[in-house]
Amino acid sequence: MTSESQRTLIRRLPEKAVDDLAALHEILDAARVAHVGFTDEAGRPVVMPTGAARDGDRLLLHGSTGSRMFRRLAGGAEVCVTLTLLDGLVLARSAFESSMHYRSAVVFGVATPVPGEEKVAALRAMSEAWMPGRWDTLRPPNPRELAATAVLSLPLDEWSVKVSDGPPEDPDEDLDAPVWAGTLPIRSTYGPPVPAPDLRGNPRFPSESAGWSIG
Amino acid sequence: MTSESQRTLIRRLPEKAVDDLAALHEILDAARVAHVGFTDEAGRPVVMPTGAARDGDRLLLHGSTGSRMFRRLAGGAEVCVTLTLLDGLVLARSAFESSMHYRSAVVFGVATPVPGEEKVAALRAMSEAWMPGRWDTLRPPNPRELAATAVLSLPLDEWSVKVSDGPPEDPDEDLDAPVWAGTLPIRSTYGPPVPAPDLRGNPRFPSESAGWSIG
Repeated sequence: MTSESQRTLIRRLPEKAVDDLAALHEILDAARVAHVGFTDEAGRPVVMPTGAARDGDRLLLHGSTGSRMFRRLAGGAEVCVTLTLLDGLVLARSAFESSMHYRSAVVFGVATPVPGEEKVAALRAMSEAWMPGRWDTLRPPNPRELAATAVLSLPLDEWSVKVSDGPPEDPDEDLDAPVWAGTLPIRSTYGPPVPAPDLRGNPRFPSESAGWSIG
Repeated sequence: MTSESQRTLIRRLPEKAVDDLAALHEILDAARVAHVGFTDEAGRPVVMPTGAARDGDRLLLHGSTGSRMFRRLAGGAEVCVTLTLLDGLVLARSAFESSMHYRSAVVFGVATPVPGEEKVAALRAMSEAWMPGRWDTLRPPNPRELAATAVLSLPLDEWSVKVSDGPPEDPDEDLDAPVWAGTLPIRSTYGPPVPAPDLRGNPRFPSESAGWSIG
């Protein structure tokens, strides 16, 4: 964690807290989906999934200018954005010690709309984070599309990171249990591409996609 | 969506809303990680990842009795729990139409702690949802472990589901763009198991894990 605020103090499992900007960046760069928490007009919590990508020292959130989330956030509402990568299962000798491998980042703050004149650059940054090389093969966004697309920028000022990895941590008295123990890694891969039914001509498949991250 | 409340009205992309209990169950059964949104003492949003599993018509949330989240939720705070599965990338002919395949479920309500006498059954249900067959191979939880473990139950009363699938939806005027279009499915699999360094004897690897879902 970077800040000393109460909010980013890791209270549970503090041994899993990681005070490392590189670890934060790694999670934000690997994850595509952020869970964005805000409150509705009545102060009740709402959590929505949205595409997110890091651009330097800010997190960009993709949305629609017509969405409730965008209107609330653009109005200055506090936000909590959480990104989690599930890396595996921990099969311990007891249910209590069984757990998951994960990496999670939590960012607090107030997001601001990226202004019109910077929106194309922000959209390009998001596209390049998700699908490097793709942007330059596509036509530029038109004014109608830009007007309908919202990009919110959340500074990476107040955040915390937790990483759970390593083997099961069974107490000594459980080590003779006649049960397999260890970890099962979870891996995400791209399956075979599915061409659009209305594909015309014989365009080159974007082989650069082999290098795209999956989160 | 099941309810007519304002909260579960799908305002964005209503064509992606799915009014189907089976679709809700499928998402809850496939996903392991829930993002739990609540407000802190100052009314600010907080989103935490936690293990979740469906048990009939309720969602069980796993936690620690010492956590801030548990204390807030057990105190009757409103909660919004969102589970998202990322299924693929949609490579359209424009950045604007490019998107992701996903399934997401949002559940609103108030979660209640599962009382002590029901906690073992609830933990067993969660274990069986995540790792079918594993529970019976492990020793039962002891009183100290049960006291430290919190299970919260959220009824599946107020919810909404969104599913994004299908091919890119490019407008006619983009169909001649000289670019590949289609979808890239994302698949999650288990990698080779990693035995615990302190594994003793030669216990059988849980081959039933081949059937465990990954979310």
